[in-house]
Amino acid sequence: MKQVIIVNESLRLPPGKLAVQVAHAAVAAFLVTSPEIQEKWIEAGMPKIVLGVSHEESLVRLFDAAQRVHLPTYLVRDAGKTVLPAGTITCLGIGPAPSVSVDALTGNLALLP
Amino acid sequence: MKQVIIVNESLRLPPGKLAVQVAHAAVAAFLVTSPEIQEKWIEAGMPKIVLGVSHEESLVRLFDAAQRVHLPTYLVRDAGKTVLPAGTITCLGIGPAPSVSVDALTGNLALLP
Repeated sequence: MKQVIIVNESLRLPPGKLAVQVAHAAVAAFLVTSPEIQEKWIEAGMPKIVLGVSHEESLVRLFDAAQRVHLPTYLVRDAGKTVLPAGTITCLGIGPAPSVSVDALTGNLALLP
Repeated sequence: MKQVIIVNESLRLPPGKLAVQVAHAAVAAFLVTSPEIQEKWIEAGMPKIVLGVSHEESLVRLFDAAQRVHLPTYLVRDAGKTVLPAGTITCLGIGPAPSVSVDALTGNLALLP
């Protein structure tokens, strides 16, 4: 079991703003996950990792791919109240889900430093 | 309604590592919140902010204060698998809860940049 949050690195968000967006993705993707998987993930200690991509389009492609294989997923669009234009895609949450399913989509991406 | 996550800035965590810790606090504090408050917060768009403090002890004090007034709260201790010694307190989640209750404890803290 794992949850992956993938960040749009092209936005160069400051650390606090980035953390808010990632937390939003984590909670929102959790909420679209089935209760059985939620429970297994909580029991496992809620493992999560944060990865990065260079383009917004990569997040849209990963979102489509996750939906196609019925993984719980949530695309975060910023409300545009601070530094970003409204609707900017900041990050994507996938899972919690079995690690093998998540890795099939995201295993080639780099950890966000 | 709001959720606040307060970060131990003295650790100078890299942005990706920080985001993982904040996301962990967000989900874990959400899970110790009553279903009624969870629902109200979700309907409000899950508002959350990330604040910073300079010392681990400040997080412990805020955790104690939040428990004393029966706010949902969760102190994140790192498992010590990567850059931090096991048990290091990285951040604290408070809420979701009514904004006035959260602000009474955290209203004097600075936003994490």
